[in-house]
Amino acid sequence: MPQVVGRQYKEILKQYLSSQSEEDLYVGQQFSRRFIEKDIAPEDVISIHKNALHDIVPDLRKEVWDSFDFLIEMMIHYGLTLREHQSLIRKQE
Amino acid sequence: MPQVVGRQYKEILKQYLSSQSEEDLYVGQQFSRRFIEKDIAPEDVISIHKNALHDIVPDLRKEVWDSFDFLIEMMIHYGLTLREHQSLIRKQE
Repeated sequence: MPQVVGRQYKEILKQYLSSQSEEDLYVGQQFSRRFIEKDIAPEDVISIHKNALHDIVPDLRKEVWDSFDFLIEMMIHYGLTLREHQSLIRKQE
Repeated sequence: MPQVVGRQYKEILKQYLSSQSEEDLYVGQQFSRRFIEKDIAPEDVISIHKNALHDIVPDLRKEVWDSFDFLIEMMIHYGLTLREHQSLIRKQE
């Protein structure tokens, strides 16, 4: 996954954390459409989020980062199911 | 989503955070299959994770919890795409 996506994600997240506005939350939701178009798997989103949060708030307890590794594992089957969907769609086209 | 799933998730996460073992990570991955079978959306997984982490490590900076709200929004389109997949599968059955 391109580093540029990670940088953009961090900027949008940072903006939301400082503004807490509905608009910035919406920017995030729209950004996620591009993630799907780029075939970025849900487990990769968690990983991008973990890295962005680590840059923004580095001094958190170890449990937080470990918990993200657990969440990444949880998302793997969701990612598999989505890829199955994409291959079904392509077959129908 | 049933509260029982949230409780089970918290126990498995807690176990992983204390053991850090590959086995407990694998338990999580297997547990996620059941989530998909129960039609639990990926955005709900983030929400379940947020609540579980809050019970395990409550005294974290506000940014952490706010960042989970952002991540939930990011997952909404993934959830929509998955539901589209499930309805396609059902049509083909």
